[in-house]
Amino acid sequence: MAVGPDTFPLLPPIAGMRLGVAKAGLRKGEGSDLTVFELAPGSEIAAVFTTNAFCAAPVLVAKAHLQRETGNIRWLVINAGNANAGTGPQGLHDAKQTCEVLAAMVEGRSGQILPFSTGVIGEPLPLDRIIQALPQALESLSDHGWQEAARAIMTTDTRPKGAVAHCTVDGRPVTVAGIAKGAGMIAPNMATMLAFVGTDAKVERQVLQQVLSAAVERSFNAISVDGDTSTNDACVLMATGKAANDAIVESHPDFVSFRSAVFSVCGQLAEAIVRDGEGATKLIHIQVEEAVDLDEARQVGFTVANSPLVKTAFFAGDPNWGRILAAVGRAGCSNLEIERVRIWLDEVNVVANGGRALDYTEEAGQQVMQRQEITIRIALGRGQVSARMMTCDLSYDYVRINAEYRT
Amino acid sequence: MAVGPDTFPLLPPIAGMRLGVAKAGLRKGEGSDLTVFELAPGSEIAAVFTTNAFCAAPVLVAKAHLQRETGNIRWLVINAGNANAGTGPQGLHDAKQTCEVLAAMVEGRSGQILPFSTGVIGEPLPLDRIIQALPQALESLSDHGWQEAARAIMTTDTRPKGAVAHCTVDGRPVTVAGIAKGAGMIAPNMATMLAFVGTDAKVERQVLQQVLSAAVERSFNAISVDGDTSTNDACVLMATGKAANDAIVESHPDFVSFRSAVFSVCGQLAEAIVRDGEGATKLIHIQVEEAVDLDEARQVGFTVANSPLVKTAFFAGDPNWGRILAAVGRAGCSNLEIERVRIWLDEVNVVANGGRALDYTEEAGQQVMQRQEITIRIALGRGQVSARMMTCDLSYDYVRINAEYRT
Repeated sequence: MAVGPDTFPLLPPIAGMRLGVAKAGLRKGEGSDLTVFELAPGSEIAAVFTTNAFCAAPVLVAKAHLQRETGNIRWLVINAGNANAGTGPQGLHDAKQTCEVLAAMVEGRSGQILPFSTGVIGEPLPLDRIIQALPQALESLSDHGWQEAARAIMTTDTRPKGAVAHCTVDGRPVTVAGIAKGAGMIAPNMATMLAFVGTDAKVERQVLQQVLSAAVERSFNAISVDGDTSTNDACVLMATGKAANDAIVESHPDFVSFRSAVFSVCGQLAEAIVRDGEGATKLIHIQVEEAVDLDEARQVGFTVANSPLVKTAFFAGDPNWGRILAAVGRAGCSNLEIERVRIWLDEVNVVANGGRALDYTEEAGQQVMQRQEITIRIALGRGQVSARMMTCDLSYDYVRINAEYRT
Repeated sequence: MAVGPDTFPLLPPIAGMRLGVAKAGLRKGEGSDLTVFELAPGSEIAAVFTTNAFCAAPVLVAKAHLQRETGNIRWLVINAGNANAGTGPQGLHDAKQTCEVLAAMVEGRSGQILPFSTGVIGEPLPLDRIIQALPQALESLSDHGWQEAARAIMTTDTRPKGAVAHCTVDGRPVTVAGIAKGAGMIAPNMATMLAFVGTDAKVERQVLQQVLSAAVERSFNAISVDGDTSTNDACVLMATGKAANDAIVESHPDFVSFRSAVFSVCGQLAEAIVRDGEGATKLIHIQVEEAVDLDEARQVGFTVANSPLVKTAFFAGDPNWGRILAAVGRAGCSNLEIERVRIWLDEVNVVANGGRALDYTEEAGQQVMQRQEITIRIALGRGQVSARMMTCDLSYDYVRINAEYRT
């Protein structure tokens, strides 16, 4: 299940970037499960990785390579079906070896390659099968490989996820396009969220990282399916520079325009992940207003977003606002004055003055809860700061998917 | 569903305490839903209440009465089926009115009565029905009312919960007995955990509170069903003093013995709540060892206990240790050295050296996961501090119970 129609947008080529896929046979079922990105020389790369202490071997290797070969990264290699996490020294060896073997094939240095893995934790990486499939992935490198790659990186995803945005830099058309996978934010068994975004813009290195970090904060870090954080999460922004604009820095007149395009693509991909949340039947926007600061707004929002009781009520289509109120109450706001808190379900005011709003009716609440997309708006009456986030409901299928995953 | 046999222990009378029940018709189905405790003059009472900012009206009133009439509390009145939470000024009025009416019937002061409610949030309390049923509850007051009361305070509980322990104080036999309700820790829709423990021991007031707070910390605060915290939680310890021992203070030679009895009763009741966790099919003990401090040990334990992915894996009987490892990794231990972490499922070592233990086999893991009670032991390799907690698995029935509750 997923919320909304399954529509993969037409992703245009990014000059200076090619994608290839192959079937290594790491994952149940048919289809490709190995992806290679090739970048033109001179490309810049920014990346954000999981904060989980048990980060996977490929994350450690990718971080080390990014540092060692800053400005010289030319290839990404991504396998689905196995996370190469919780695999100890052997896992590190396998991630490095994947890069070594690919480097020999493309006549590059191993450090110029960033490895990514997604799938089951704790199983040894089937290195031989990856090595055998690499030549096919390289042969299939193409400008038009987005959709195949979006499928090849999937695990419990029910649909491929892609997004595109355009902007103008120095009067030239610039494209930002990307793909992502993930159906839990973040389901560690699937080790799970990956996003790869490319642009033909030329962007100064530090600015690229700054734009990506800001984009991740308001997109992938503002969604939750189950509150779990993966060992393998990574988001990469690649800029080939082929649009031949003046390198984007903060003072560039088109900086904001470019940043908005990256925000848009990351935002679309993050929303696509929630829509495809494991077992999701509803998309829930949460808007927290009048908080003292951003931390408080996010804390309240995520407490509501991760409450199993709020999520099951939405699955049932039950306007059980008491559960939202109770989640707000335990979110840890110091000296919360409950008389000031107001809560809405879409346009319907459900809570005011510390209790049910006077003009609220169960019928009005029921009507909102029939919708597939609902906004919970929470005004805390404490300050000026707002935050938005997204989550989905908790259904039988979430339990089924996660109970049956390895069986 | 629940884990383990449904056995309500034989709870002996507590001299100086009587219990009565009545059917006020606040709750679906048959049976009593209104309970009154009567305490002999001179009884001391200690209490611990929810930390939820949206605490229910009866919690506010009970706190105020405890403060105003310290040492003079004589009655408790508890209704199930309606939490009187999220009910604003009307809710406060209703809670006070319940006390006023009962006070008139027993010729006491309203402040000598502590009110408790458990049930749906946000519905007005049906005050009339409570008032009508109070005389019957008073008429039925008896030394032997424990089991009826344990049933009358139930909501989504599938079984009544009681516990007893004995000790000797000044050579006299002392009894500690109690009942509890709750099937989520804590399901705010049900507003939900209540525990009432009585003893005939004579205990100095501050010491009674100190013993209760310590007992709650290691019992009710060490369990989790879904990570939600109720608006109505309360735990009360009542000491009638009828054993006529020298008042227990910290220097009393039998202080430790008495405290152990209270710990035992609270521990048994807490375990009974997890065993009856909504949809529970497995009882999971979590033991965190070698933490830097207690906060860290508890943080790691509750991150594992509340992970939907860990819980669904246990429901499926799947030894998916990668999910445990990933939960430990995101628990926020600063500078966790993953090579030092070891994890066991009962006697089977599953994780060592940052990955799967060398001698671990899937068969050994599968075998453990067939059990109804399993201990996850996590050694962090950082310090000397341990903590224990309990949780249950996440099943289809959890979703069903919480999706269908109001329908």
